[in-house]
Amino acid sequence: MKIDVLTTFPDMLVPVIESSIARIAAEKGIVSIEPHDIRSFSENKHGKTDDYPFGGGDGMVMTPQPLFSGIRHCLDNVKPEKPRIIFPTPDGVPFSQDLAEDLAQEPYLLMICGHYKGIDQRVRDVWVTDEISIGDYVLTGGEIASLVIIDAVIRLIPGVIGTLDSALSDSFSHPLLDCPWYTRPEVFEDLKVPDVLLSGHHARIETWRQEERIKKTRERRPDLYHKWLSEQKKD
Amino acid sequence: MKIDVLTTFPDMLVPVIESSIARIAAEKGIVSIEPHDIRSFSENKHGKTDDYPFGGGDGMVMTPQPLFSGIRHCLDNVKPEKPRIIFPTPDGVPFSQDLAEDLAQEPYLLMICGHYKGIDQRVRDVWVTDEISIGDYVLTGGEIASLVIIDAVIRLIPGVIGTLDSALSDSFSHPLLDCPWYTRPEVFEDLKVPDVLLSGHHARIETWRQEERIKKTRERRPDLYHKWLSEQKKD
Repeated sequence: MKIDVLTTFPDMLVPVIESSIARIAAEKGIVSIEPHDIRSFSENKHGKTDDYPFGGGDGMVMTPQPLFSGIRHCLDNVKPEKPRIIFPTPDGVPFSQDLAEDLAQEPYLLMICGHYKGIDQRVRDVWVTDEISIGDYVLTGGEIASLVIIDAVIRLIPGVIGTLDSALSDSFSHPLLDCPWYTRPEVFEDLKVPDVLLSGHHARIETWRQEERIKKTRERRPDLYHKWLSEQKKD
Repeated sequence: MKIDVLTTFPDMLVPVIESSIARIAAEKGIVSIEPHDIRSFSENKHGKTDDYPFGGGDGMVMTPQPLFSGIRHCLDNVKPEKPRIIFPTPDGVPFSQDLAEDLAQEPYLLMICGHYKGIDQRVRDVWVTDEISIGDYVLTGGEIASLVIIDAVIRLIPGVIGTLDSALSDSFSHPLLDCPWYTRPEVFEDLKVPDVLLSGHHARIETWRQEERIKKTRERRPDLYHKWLSEQKKD
């Protein structure tokens, strides 16, 4: 997979790309991620990339020209058949594990990182295929949101993390939240691991884990609990 | 505000802290963020920080000792009265703008970045005050999730971003998703800005924007639309 990222803060992305799972994926030759500075595509003599909104309002909007030019530059290099062009934004569709799995099938992704009030609507209308919200909260820009999407997607590509099992056994590969996990030592500062986990009875351990999953999901995420419950009744 | 971050990947955090809003907040003397390497607190001679889970299962669990020591080190330095100790995890409570506003009131936050299957449950039981999920998807570790929480929180601290207005006028300060925004030029490659935004009629512009907000929210986020609608009826 090739991922291009259009950003006004390339320095912010490079180190994360070079020290996270993205580096592992790059070393294995599975994924290559390239940040591009939106300013370098600006035809304005000061490299300007934003301006005041038409119709009034606080804050700045990113202008269409540098983004149109940057998007064309990336697409001309790669010539993808059906590019997925992703704009992380709080008014997008909610990001989910299903959407991450969908994006993990793609050979090419182009991410656009907005700032301030976002980007001129014409960029969204003409180019963007996926407007994605990583959650119901506001960030200063699209860079950290892009890192979230990239991380969630590339760990699902076969070969990137050690065993597919460890990707599949997480919360959200499951319909329930995860159970508690314990490791050595058995007793740490008088705090003891639950006896059942030391029993060696696999069936009892699995029963305990499932009960813990159900309990936590019911208390913390009634929405997921009721979804799971109605799927149980169908079976 | 002081934020300590316990992580096995401090190199991943430093550049983002140094090139994002966190740098601006640090330069203004409003926020200071310090990553601490969990490995440096390990009493294991190889600096080990994880081990196999009791009761079986794929993947590794972070051991209690380095985290207990690291948490005590941070708290002993700062001596906060009621520390908020945050563990980003997909089985946490959903992160929201309300939670960001709540955390923005705190003088001190301690973030714990997990990896693999997460951390020994005893760390969560004894220390963690806030288990937070940034969304219903799985990341390789807690570092990027911590960056999301830090970014959303510190932008709300008075003085960090230019005008409070621009923080308040975003999506999620509103009950509806944001309207489209346009900036110069009026016509770009035959694509024209909607006439209403050039009309100078402020009331008509506000009506158009509100209609667009309602339309987008209804189509894309029926959950938020119905919540907004029921609040309208109450008034």
